[in-house]
Amino acid sequence: MKLLNETINAIGTLDQEAMEQAQTRLDQLTKPPGSLGKLEAIAIKLAGITGELYPDISHRQLVLFAGDHGVVAEGVSAFPQEVTEAMVLNFLNGGAAVNVFARQGDVQIKLVDVGMIADLTHPELQKCKVKAGTNNFCVGPAMTKEEAIEAIEVGISVAKEAKAQGVQVLATGEMGIGNTTPSSALASVLAQIPVEQVVGRGTGVDEAGLKRKISAISRGIELNRPDPMDPLDALAKVGGLEIAGLAGLILGAASLRIPIIIDGFISSAAALVAAKIAPASKDFMLASHASVEPGHNQVLGEIGLEPIIYLDMRLGEGTGAVLAMHLVDAAVLMIKEMATFAEAGITS
Amino acid sequence: MKLLNETINAIGTLDQEAMEQAQTRLDQLTKPPGSLGKLEAIAIKLAGITGELYPDISHRQLVLFAGDHGVVAEGVSAFPQEVTEAMVLNFLNGGAAVNVFARQGDVQIKLVDVGMIADLTHPELQKCKVKAGTNNFCVGPAMTKEEAIEAIEVGISVAKEAKAQGVQVLATGEMGIGNTTPSSALASVLAQIPVEQVVGRGTGVDEAGLKRKISAISRGIELNRPDPMDPLDALAKVGGLEIAGLAGLILGAASLRIPIIIDGFISSAAALVAAKIAPASKDFMLASHASVEPGHNQVLGEIGLEPIIYLDMRLGEGTGAVLAMHLVDAAVLMIKEMATFAEAGITS
Repeated sequence: MKLLNETINAIGTLDQEAMEQAQTRLDQLTKPPGSLGKLEAIAIKLAGITGELYPDISHRQLVLFAGDHGVVAEGVSAFPQEVTEAMVLNFLNGGAAVNVFARQGDVQIKLVDVGMIADLTHPELQKCKVKAGTNNFCVGPAMTKEEAIEAIEVGISVAKEAKAQGVQVLATGEMGIGNTTPSSALASVLAQIPVEQVVGRGTGVDEAGLKRKISAISRGIELNRPDPMDPLDALAKVGGLEIAGLAGLILGAASLRIPIIIDGFISSAAALVAAKIAPASKDFMLASHASVEPGHNQVLGEIGLEPIIYLDMRLGEGTGAVLAMHLVDAAVLMIKEMATFAEAGITS
Repeated sequence: MKLLNETINAIGTLDQEAMEQAQTRLDQLTKPPGSLGKLEAIAIKLAGITGELYPDISHRQLVLFAGDHGVVAEGVSAFPQEVTEAMVLNFLNGGAAVNVFARQGDVQIKLVDVGMIADLTHPELQKCKVKAGTNNFCVGPAMTKEEAIEAIEVGISVAKEAKAQGVQVLATGEMGIGNTTPSSALASVLAQIPVEQVVGRGTGVDEAGLKRKISAISRGIELNRPDPMDPLDALAKVGGLEIAGLAGLILGAASLRIPIIIDGFISSAAALVAAKIAPASKDFMLASHASVEPGHNQVLGEIGLEPIIYLDMRLGEGTGAVLAMHLVDAAVLMIKEMATFAEAGITS
């Protein structure tokens, strides 16, 4: 709790002067003011976060937390729970979608086991297991508040390590069979959206599975009565370990002034937890893609973020965050490399 | 007209066998079927266009047509007409937004003067001037049908040159102060959308300017009576030279089986002209970004395309098309580099 409290207290505000300088520079570039839309907003936000007009963002890392979910016993996923381990092995072997897009975008992947059931040992898997999977929240709380805080603090520590290694931009990723279910539960509780509106098919559950998801989430909320005003309580009762790790990573990134790109629905649920714990953390987040998951847009809206890529994806892993890195790079290159009206000899 | 007719006749259909092979391969990759959404659709389309599962798209070119517009005399643009020339010089010097994003995405830029008023000579500006700017369509037709066809055939020739140079993907770009006005006119006529619904602020006209645009387009359509069933008639009467060049480029690309990425509103108006001239050309187009321009989505919908990047941009030049190249690359890398379930030892 000490590390979490220190982290919350360390989150600062955006550098207004740098943002004004960025705005001034953007208005001098050879384009109508504001015509590059959200790319301009990203350039301004990056200036506010880093204090630099032309931040170096060449060293970037995706942190991918893996965890399992007791609620899978309720038949909420299209895939068996063992696929969490199989996919982590796939990440380690470089064969998953997120590996492909990370190589393309020159993004390093850090894999963290914060709550897998499998006991996997590999030099490239950071073991910070808080618990071997959450409990089934249809039977009792997914975890204790202490466990939730411990998982958050794993995320904060990973952000600190990244900072120490010179990482300049972070991105969020996750793997955990069944994790759209706790994410939907958190979205429903913390953004106060009816369960039926927030639940989707995840990576591909059928009609019966969708009904089981809605039922499981409704029963979990009914049974555990998570407090909508207490994000830690909600996270512990109906959340997940990798979601907690991501929330911690986001809070840590914010406290260290590292811009963090939020992936899809699960990452956005974690971002919502972070935003509810420390509203100032929102300023350090960048949204990436719009997931097919129906609750995603509502969660982003509740945080105050807007996606920039629309590919109808529903895979997670960090795929959308890593693909968006190119557009964040574009924002930096724009403000740095475009000619001004004066340089181009145009009277604006 | 001969080259145009030959080109239309040369447009083939997608390779169904290659598309089925791509679909089969996609379903073997370590992800739930369809979970990469539009990236999978792009991979399948590229297979259908090129006949290859793993097409090489490393050699790519943005063709940027420049032209001027007589209708600027009606006060429809926020910028004076001289800015067309100034911006072309900016492109030649590498200082514009599109230059920055093209360097980032490793896309070569080809600049073509198909209708500028300025008489500019530069080794990197291809001179194919059909006419020094269109006529004001509030006074008479923007150009003759012969001129429109000539400008289209310039575009076709540029596509042929690209093919000869080994270009594997094309992207569309344009510069022409005032060109959202003819684009809106074409959208209104060819997609049968009321003028008021299709007209926006372009790169930044004010309320009075917006009214002047609506008035000019309404008068132009009233005066010239473009035939909604005859895209060449509409293009000549209320279109533009760079729009005609782009339509030709798109038709040429389709006939040569080169995938072509469509930029924003003006490029989409050109794509609509191409699609009305030769519906089979649609299969070779890829949409890029969703412009702020209100008519853009309707035009893309009329063609049957969906944008993938939402950055609220309104700059043109080809900026959105070039930024989307990264996602097209991602689609190819995905199908090529991802592990299959069998390779990863996962029972799917």
